[in-house]
Amino acid sequence: MPTTFLGSALRGTFFFAFGLWWSVRYPLKYLRRKGGAEGQPGRGHTEVFEGAVKAFFALVGILVEQFVPTGPHLQLYSPKTHSWTDLTHWHYSTIYLFFLLSGITDMVSHSPLKLPPGLDRLSLSLALLVEGEFVHGCDSSWHLHSLLAVAIFAGALCALLEVFHRDHIILETFRTSSFLLQGSWLWQIGFVLSPPWGGPGWDQTDSSNLLFLTMCFCWHYLGALATVAANAAASRWYEGVLAQRQDPEAEHDRRCQIFPCASL
Amino acid sequence: MPTTFLGSALRGTFFFAFGLWWSVRYPLKYLRRKGGAEGQPGRGHTEVFEGAVKAFFALVGILVEQFVPTGPHLQLYSPKTHSWTDLTHWHYSTIYLFFLLSGITDMVSHSPLKLPPGLDRLSLSLALLVEGEFVHGCDSSWHLHSLLAVAIFAGALCALLEVFHRDHIILETFRTSSFLLQGSWLWQIGFVLSPPWGGPGWDQTDSSNLLFLTMCFCWHYLGALATVAANAAASRWYEGVLAQRQDPEAEHDRRCQIFPCASL
Amino acid sequence: MPTTFLGSALRGTFFFAFGLWWSVRYPLKYLRRKGGAEGQPGRGHTEVFEGAVKAFFALVGILVEQFVPTGPHLQLYSPKTHSWTDLTHWHYSTIYLFFLLSGITDMVSHSPLKLPPGLDRLSLSLALLVEGEFVHGCDSSWHLHSLLAVAIFAGALCALLEVFHRDHIILETFRTSSFLLQGSWLWQIGFVLSPPWGGPGWDQTDSSNLLFLTMCFCWHYLGALATVAANAAASRWYEGVLAQRQDPEAEHDRRCQIFPCASL
Amino acid sequence: MPTTFLGSALRGTFFFAFGLWWSVRYPLKYLRRKGGAEGQPGRGHTEVFEGAVKAFFALVGILVEQFVPTGPHLQLYSPKTHSWTDLTHWHYSTIYLFFLLSGITDMVSHSPLKLPPGLDRLSLSLALLVEGEFVHGCDSSWHLHSLLAVAIFAGALCALLEVFHRDHIILETFRTSSFLLQGSWLWQIGFVLSPPWGGPGWDQTDSSNLLFLTMCFCWHYLGALATVAANAAASRWYEGVLAQRQDPEAEHDRRCQIFPCASL
Repeated sequence: MPTTFLGSALRGTFFFAFGLWWSVRYPLKYLRRKGGAEGQPGRGHTEVFEGAVKAFFALVGILVEQFVPTGPHLQLYSPKTHSWTDLTHWHYSTIYLFFLLSGITDMVSHSPLKLPPGLDRLSLSLALLVEGEFVHGCDSSWHLHSLLAVAIFAGALCALLEVFHRDHIILETFRTSSFLLQGSWLWQIGFVLSPPWGGPGWDQTDSSNLLFLTMCFCWHYLGALATVAANAAASRWYEGVLAQRQDPEAEHDRRCQIFPCASL
Repeated sequence: MPTTFLGSALRGTFFFAFGLWWSVRYPLKYLRRKGGAEGQPGRGHTEVFEGAVKAFFALVGILVEQFVPTGPHLQLYSPKTHSWTDLTHWHYSTIYLFFLLSGITDMVSHSPLKLPPGLDRLSLSLALLVEGEFVHGCDSSWHLHSLLAVAIFAGALCALLEVFHRDHIILETFRTSSFLLQGSWLWQIGFVLSPPWGGPGWDQTDSSNLLFLTMCFCWHYLGALATVAANAAASRWYEGVLAQRQDPEAEHDRRCQIFPCASL
Repeated sequence: MPTTFLGSALRGTFFFAFGLWWSVRYPLKYLRRKGGAEGQPGRGHTEVFEGAVKAFFALVGILVEQFVPTGPHLQLYSPKTHSWTDLTHWHYSTIYLFFLLSGITDMVSHSPLKLPPGLDRLSLSLALLVEGEFVHGCDSSWHLHSLLAVAIFAGALCALLEVFHRDHIILETFRTSSFLLQGSWLWQIGFVLSPPWGGPGWDQTDSSNLLFLTMCFCWHYLGALATVAANAAASRWYEGVLAQRQDPEAEHDRRCQIFPCASL
Repeated sequence: MPTTFLGSALRGTFFFAFGLWWSVRYPLKYLRRKGGAEGQPGRGHTEVFEGAVKAFFALVGILVEQFVPTGPHLQLYSPKTHSWTDLTHWHYSTIYLFFLLSGITDMVSHSPLKLPPGLDRLSLSLALLVEGEFVHGCDSSWHLHSLLAVAIFAGALCALLEVFHRDHIILETFRTSSFLLQGSWLWQIGFVLSPPWGGPGWDQTDSSNLLFLTMCFCWHYLGALATVAANAAASRWYEGVLAQRQDPEAEHDRRCQIFPCASL
């Protein structure tokens, strides 16, 4: 699938934004669940909102892919040339369609019309599997995309495990980091294959470039993990401040219990 | 394995029919289990009936494969030509034999002679694995068949997981969708490789055809998911109507609880 | 690894005998566990005996491989030819060494010196994995051996799952059937590659032979499943007779409960 | 990745030392947990210490890789030659960085700032996966390194399972043995590829060498298992001596219970 910088960057931003949002939301949820049952009531709303955002962007993506000037305008077969129209746009539309479905499932799952729990994770996993299959199946520039496929399949596998182990903080953290990785790697792909300042992309046949990109992928993942850790720490600090304001006495007691020396 | 349109369509209809049946049965079972223990007594009968239908069609399939005019008539080695007879018919017979076994296991599992639970799922999984191995192993027209193998192995893996996680609604839904996908994709294979209106099949070496078929496979799956969702919604509506007729009071109460505004 | 008929048949007999033994033992254990805690005390002895038999045959196998006239006689490097001695014998010795280890672990696990449960299954799984790796890695006559590797790895995976799901009757049945399959397939390999009546083996490059062997593998598995089913039925019948003799009253009651019409 | 004997041996020593340490620690932990809750208080300190050692050696490794005379001295791109500097050193630095992260996670997990349990195993698994990817991806001398990758991925998979099945003695034993195997195999790689007594490495194109190395890998694993078994036996003996000293009465009673004949 040929890549433009803009398309790659927009997709990357979408995944990175979701990763960032989760890297704040899941630690907060975990801390509140440990503290008490406080976080439960608001949870449904958050998931519905998340699903709506996902579905909205997927819908926008489909419309853009179809109706950009070079797009197929919903035409699949060109009678003039007796061949398929450019299928790349259709591929992306299909991927977005599965993310749209995932968004709708999220929204319906947490509506009063209760669906069996786990269906939202299954649909997310399916969307990632479809995305991964398309990315893995495209032959051009294989090394960059096979690394991307690693990030996508890691996320898909994690979402699939969450069908059975729901609300498992480790799985949620791992999924968050895989989304951050996918987002930042899509930016990297944009820079490598079609740099925004023009000029040709990197030489994909040079083996030292491939070695560097493999290493670079690991650094991206370290960056993703650092982001997750920083946001988790910030959530914990924020939660502590909040708890202290609401109940300075109790918070002081709790703190003394954890850091006995700090009570001096 | 060479494919005729009729054979592919009949096989497809079998899998699609099973998928449709499950897409009604499992949501009903789930709703009744949530409502109370009402669904349990009738369940054994349904599984026995299902097994009988499966075994009957598998048996018919074996007989047809063996005794069609071009079939091997139970002859494996032709002494005249000193070579094997056409093994395609034998391959299909072997696959059907495993489905026959799966049907018999279903029937015996739910007879008074109680077998350990999970044996029916294991035998279904084995039948799908054998089918998938034959489909995956045939070299001709590989892309179409490798997509079919994806649908088959997804179903096999799901049935295998059900050995351990029995009566898990998500797994049942996924298995249902994989059967619907397999059924509709077998129809697609029939149309692509040997169109019923005569003429040659599609050009399998054209890469844009392959790209289209990959995408088409995703659309088939979306169609399968839509079928599952529609039937689940219909089952829920039907269950609601039934509950209201049996006990209008209780149903009214329940409805008010879910949609408070509807009670006005 | 070059194969002789005798070697293949002896190995096959070993695995087949273990499969047969388990196909009687596990159903009996399951029935007794359902009936009450009766089967527990004797169980340790059976496992120790099984381990001793396994270890004994593995030891005999090692000695035979090393000290047959064409064997290496414990010599690994031949200083005369400045090359390794025939490594096939060493390969088999290594495989048997792991089965010896598995046998010893079985014996120690159920001795008064209690090891953590699951270690016996892990060591069996390791032995099968090592065997599968050697079988899969040998390049000659690949199709026959890759089918054998399927049977071996299926058994290894099953034993690995049993580390976590101990005493799961479905897993035990599946492992039993994989051993029966492996045993009978080793006999088939012997007949195909080096027929006992002399003459060359089958033509491995003929694709119809390969198709037939794939199908034949499925039939072997059907035979293995039939053996398991027949032995399970026989165990149940035997258990029923035994129960009736010990306590005719209770057995009559139990039977009436299951088949109410039979009490007339 | 080109290998020097010294580098391979140092890495091997690190993994072997960790394996040895665990082969003593885990049996002791298991015995104490079975005996009572005695082992729990000290456990956090051990894990923090382990993490500190891991992080320290990883940090030393990074510094050595960067600042040896032939190293890149933190320079990634050489402006003189307009190409990447030697990326091998950077690869190892990246691997060590993940082990550094794993060490830090160990330390933080067991600090008063309690992280969700399982995060330490996930980070260890990530470090091993990254190591395995680099080892598996390097094309030179593939057979030796693919065997190493087997040992690494086995350890990674085991650590991943421990996220869900924490404190499972079988998994801990298996992880220990995989570390011992990796350590001793790294020594073997050093001897094979760049013998310390000079001279060229083994001929990697000779198929009998490959067959021997496959077998040798199994023997290394047998050695690793023997080490684990010996250390477990020693820990049990030591624990028995300790228990007897602290409470000779109780120990005598316990011993009589296990070996009734020994009390005579």
